[in-house]
Amino acid sequence: MARIAVVGAGLAGLACAQSLRDAGNVVRGFEKSRGAGGRMATRRTDHGTYDHGAQYFTVRAPAFRAAVERWLAHGVIAPYAGRIVNLQDGVTSTLSHPGQRYVATPAMPAVCRALAADMDIDFECQITAVTPGEQGWRLSWEEGGESGFDAVVLAIPAAQALPLCTAVPELAAQVSQGGHAPCWAAMVRYEAPLPLEFDAAFVADSMIGWVMRDGSRPGRAAGERWVLHANAEWSKAHLEDGAETVAPLLIEAFHAAAGIRAEPVESRAHRWRFALSGGLNAGSFWDAGRRIGVCGDWCADGRIEGAYLSGTGLAARLISTI
Amino acid sequence: MARIAVVGAGLAGLACAQSLRDAGNVVRGFEKSRGAGGRMATRRTDHGTYDHGAQYFTVRAPAFRAAVERWLAHGVIAPYAGRIVNLQDGVTSTLSHPGQRYVATPAMPAVCRALAADMDIDFECQITAVTPGEQGWRLSWEEGGESGFDAVVLAIPAAQALPLCTAVPELAAQVSQGGHAPCWAAMVRYEAPLPLEFDAAFVADSMIGWVMRDGSRPGRAAGERWVLHANAEWSKAHLEDGAETVAPLLIEAFHAAAGIRAEPVESRAHRWRFALSGGLNAGSFWDAGRRIGVCGDWCADGRIEGAYLSGTGLAARLISTI
Repeated sequence: MARIAVVGAGLAGLACAQSLRDAGNVVRGFEKSRGAGGRMATRRTDHGTYDHGAQYFTVRAPAFRAAVERWLAHGVIAPYAGRIVNLQDGVTSTLSHPGQRYVATPAMPAVCRALAADMDIDFECQITAVTPGEQGWRLSWEEGGESGFDAVVLAIPAAQALPLCTAVPELAAQVSQGGHAPCWAAMVRYEAPLPLEFDAAFVADSMIGWVMRDGSRPGRAAGERWVLHANAEWSKAHLEDGAETVAPLLIEAFHAAAGIRAEPVESRAHRWRFALSGGLNAGSFWDAGRRIGVCGDWCADGRIEGAYLSGTGLAARLISTI
Repeated sequence: MARIAVVGAGLAGLACAQSLRDAGNVVRGFEKSRGAGGRMATRRTDHGTYDHGAQYFTVRAPAFRAAVERWLAHGVIAPYAGRIVNLQDGVTSTLSHPGQRYVATPAMPAVCRALAADMDIDFECQITAVTPGEQGWRLSWEEGGESGFDAVVLAIPAAQALPLCTAVPELAAQVSQGGHAPCWAAMVRYEAPLPLEFDAAFVADSMIGWVMRDGSRPGRAAGERWVLHANAEWSKAHLEDGAETVAPLLIEAFHAAAGIRAEPVESRAHRWRFALSGGLNAGSFWDAGRRIGVCGDWCADGRIEGAYLSGTGLAARLISTI
């Protein structure tokens, strides 16, 4: 039995924490925001929710499929049955690789909230330093700190993990290879359904990369709410623009790509500084000697499946060491 | 310095072997076929080559990009500039996520051959058993065997690795999760160029999943040679069919999807029993206590990049243990 700190309550951190706890360890989580989920996020409005970060996930690896079957049985996810297409200059075409997609219900954070429900997690607590202490690791936050962790897991974006693992230069060197592209997202509501024959689209030849009708997913409120994601290139170029100038540009590009004219009744934009990552394709990082590790989608394949498997994979490595 | 056996001379095994050797270990490779490359394969004919397995690769992770830059500098790969599209019922559309693709030159095995050039590898030597010996591991093959390996790396498909790692049940359990879908490939030559505006296509609504004009790639002989890949579902259903019955079916489906009529002058088919894998998204597997590990595209993301990073990742874990 070891005392382990897990920093970050997105899917990777929670999957890791759960595995560690199930193996008999004492796990304490730290999360800087108010709730679990990370980029599996939702925004509540008076007219329903927008899942403005990750919007669905796919399954390939058997170990993740097993988790997905459990989540299906518990009703925290459901298969997505909406029509997804490729979209280019107003013309749609079928996806070459369709595959089954899943969404969390009633909103994307549901999976992480279920995982976090019976965990010991400090929310709104941002870790500012991880330092070797007299007994194991010491984690510090603005108002205080705590020592005596036998091991530390950093389950946060690479750019945020890097300053916390400088005590182990080899690990920091690996983490410094990771990174996320930003993504500007717009949440747009229309009074009436848009005249479109699809519910979601990968968009080509546009500053928009992806659009989805939020309400096309199971368990959502009625209403014509769309989430638009700018592509990485455009998001990077306009990273420091204001949300109020970005939203109209995304909406205009969406209408142009879809070949429609429409007038939203409500819109807002959200900047994801650390959004999609190509992924380091390394699973996870673990320094067995110093007992500090890093996991996250960006360590694996940059997807939700990767986040889960990175977390459980790191837990397995940690358990076999301690 | 350790004495390490690496089974399999595809990209994962060779990348692992190179890293291990560069760290000062004595590495001996074993490969059941006559040359290096695995599924990065080519078939020579009187009218030029067909790369009938993997046909290109993409780059996302920085660690793989560094290798790609070296290979570019050494001329064993080149950027692919052909036109790739989505194809459905004779209609093409642009890829939503184009991205730069690379091919090995003059044929796909070139990368692995370059890596294998100065390695100690026994070709045409199929390992039949890996057993704990008095001093480390013993590898056996049909005509003999060898003991005294401090560590063993299995860099082969999951179905082939499984019988070789039964001495370590925990590892075997992980390997048993892996797997590859089969792929029937046809190599087809035409007298004159086909009237197509693309060089390669992801095909939807067809038993064909992918087609590529082999000669559209740098360093290839002239001539209208196409490689057609059946999709996984069809390949699985027709796994035990004969090559002579499969080839005409693939050709017919290609012509139907492309909306053309044409008469090949030459064709043959090849069955890949272990082709594409979704990937376990775990990086690699390593038992530090028993000193045996497994790598391969199927441990990572099922792609060429994954094979490379799985191999180098396993090497790093091995080096940090020994």
